[in-house]
Amino acid sequence: MTMQTTTDRTAQPTAQQILARCRELVRPQLAAAIGRLHPWPGEMAAFSLGWSEVNGRPVPGSGTGSGSGTVPGSGGKGVRQALTVLCAEAVGAPGETAVAGAVAVELIHTFSLLHDDIMDGDELRRQRETVWKAYGTGPAVLAGDALFALALETLAESGNPHSGEAVRHLAGALNDLVRGQAEDLLFESRPWTGPHAVQPHEYRSMADDKTGSLLGCAAALGATLAGAPAPTVAVLARAGRHLGVAFQAVDDLLGIWGDPEVTGKPVHNDLRQTKKTFPVLAALATPGPAARRLTALLTSPTPLDDAALRVAAALIEEAGGRSATLDEAHRHLDIVRDCLDSVPLARAAAGDIRTLLPFLVSRRM
Amino acid sequence: MTMQTTTDRTAQPTAQQILARCRELVRPQLAAAIGRLHPWPGEMAAFSLGWSEVNGRPVPGSGTGSGSGTVPGSGGKGVRQALTVLCAEAVGAPGETAVAGAVAVELIHTFSLLHDDIMDGDELRRQRETVWKAYGTGPAVLAGDALFALALETLAESGNPHSGEAVRHLAGALNDLVRGQAEDLLFESRPWTGPHAVQPHEYRSMADDKTGSLLGCAAALGATLAGAPAPTVAVLARAGRHLGVAFQAVDDLLGIWGDPEVTGKPVHNDLRQTKKTFPVLAALATPGPAARRLTALLTSPTPLDDAALRVAAALIEEAGGRSATLDEAHRHLDIVRDCLDSVPLARAAAGDIRTLLPFLVSRRM
Repeated sequence: MTMQTTTDRTAQPTAQQILARCRELVRPQLAAAIGRLHPWPGEMAAFSLGWSEVNGRPVPGSGTGSGSGTVPGSGGKGVRQALTVLCAEAVGAPGETAVAGAVAVELIHTFSLLHDDIMDGDELRRQRETVWKAYGTGPAVLAGDALFALALETLAESGNPHSGEAVRHLAGALNDLVRGQAEDLLFESRPWTGPHAVQPHEYRSMADDKTGSLLGCAAALGATLAGAPAPTVAVLARAGRHLGVAFQAVDDLLGIWGDPEVTGKPVHNDLRQTKKTFPVLAALATPGPAARRLTALLTSPTPLDDAALRVAAALIEEAGGRSATLDEAHRHLDIVRDCLDSVPLARAAAGDIRTLLPFLVSRRM
Repeated sequence: MTMQTTTDRTAQPTAQQILARCRELVRPQLAAAIGRLHPWPGEMAAFSLGWSEVNGRPVPGSGTGSGSGTVPGSGGKGVRQALTVLCAEAVGAPGETAVAGAVAVELIHTFSLLHDDIMDGDELRRQRETVWKAYGTGPAVLAGDALFALALETLAESGNPHSGEAVRHLAGALNDLVRGQAEDLLFESRPWTGPHAVQPHEYRSMADDKTGSLLGCAAALGATLAGAPAPTVAVLARAGRHLGVAFQAVDDLLGIWGDPEVTGKPVHNDLRQTKKTFPVLAALATPGPAARRLTALLTSPTPLDDAALRVAAALIEEAGGRSATLDEAHRHLDIVRDCLDSVPLARAAAGDIRTLLPFLVSRRM
């Protein structure tokens, strides 16, 4: 694949090409940042990013420090870093201007996955052991802290004249992120029914904090580091937040109906862990027999076996929880598009962001 | 106790009075910051600071949000926040100028205690359960993250014209802090003897990173937020780092010979956990029979019982490990004093810092 610039384009690239181009742009500085860590948290960070095995040996073809990065083992798709790069380009700057911001959001994303996996007790991520499972809880706490500190240092020391404002965006996002994670954990101990049951609007607020915050920050950092005026930054940050909520809705669909081969997690994983996700809450909020049978199943004192999990997933779908969640995702994507329409943006980058939207919602299903 | 200002002073206040004055100055903004947290991590943070019980009920007399704060249950002495306030005053600004920095270092200190207790498996701190023991590991990870994010937000949003530079100091300190904690954890799996044994100089480097970094940052934030020139900030930061290393040496003494009634931890706690601290490493580095007997004891395959721990502590003292550690602390305090002599400082605040030095080394013994 060759690098494309924003000026010599003849055809709209695909979502995969856009993500790959942004990863290539960001990867050298991301690898350099990881290289500044103490070797031990550095090894855990590289493992978490899919660059190395538990023993620190590089994953073949993961392209650590070099270019490619589209191969298996290279970690996530890099949606957050891409959003930072594309928002810088959208306000008329070269993507390079915002690479420090892209590195920071990717490091914070990795930090949050690492600590969330401890809190949630998740043992698998991307078809590999989670860091706490592979290295132990204490070391995983340390590695997360190291990534958090590294993200802050990367942004604060970037030398970009707008880094102070960028740090303020990051700080706000981090506070929201923690708040969202707190709500999500508290949802677990709340009942499925009755006056204390989690309501869909509470779920939306949690998703906005937990997932919207960092995507909103990714967009804000790109525009901020590129020197965009505050109102433009605010609009792009809002677009990023809504993209995040759409993203979370799709994650919830994958958590129930996702193919384990693709998600790297067991089938019905969220149901198995009795997580209160949007499809279930939306299904429970409907009238009718499917919701009543689902309630009976979820509130039964015996843990759900594989057969019961299949029934529960079918009842959620029957009650409309699956389609409601997809509608929810599309509703938020529409808001993203409205945001993009409301400010003047560079055509190529805005086109790239639009290309990503349907891809991110249809991913891995 | 009445508040003293730096101008109307007739006699040098005591160390206790100085620390109390700084705590009073910082407490309202610290309490306001904690109040901005989500209630759940907020409760854990208040518990960790000694302001509340596990159920969130305020500790009687801990003075949350008000003034006093010298009573039992009020958490630590507040050395870091005091250093920030005093360094601002030392460069000629009112202490108020640097309160956001003092809040940030106190939050980071609390974050690091909270996460370190998870990594070290410590169940007691200040005669109470540690946060992970009282609330669970996952919630304690979350509370630490919340404090980290809150510290950054407090500093970044302070409105102080030098907050960008202050954030850079904080970022650097956090990276050092994590590096020092990584080294400290790795020391545990290294042998007591042979070519891979931890050397005293490695221990010093770890202590400089783990404890020196945040005290150096505390000093740097005070001077930075007060608008001091960079060379003055650098000298005060260096003084803070050496104070931190002295502080760590004294902590190591307390970890072996400290009174459990005062430290809130079991007697010989560090020896029981076979921690590689300066007194032990210094003792092992000496020639003579005490060091040889100590080596035999520490490398014996059976865990040390209470009687063996008493013998080990006596052997460390006999081999000179206790006095070498006290010498180490005093050597670093001398460097602190040299730093203070090398720049022009406001007399009252510099006097306050000097008053704190012997107090911090003689504490709780």
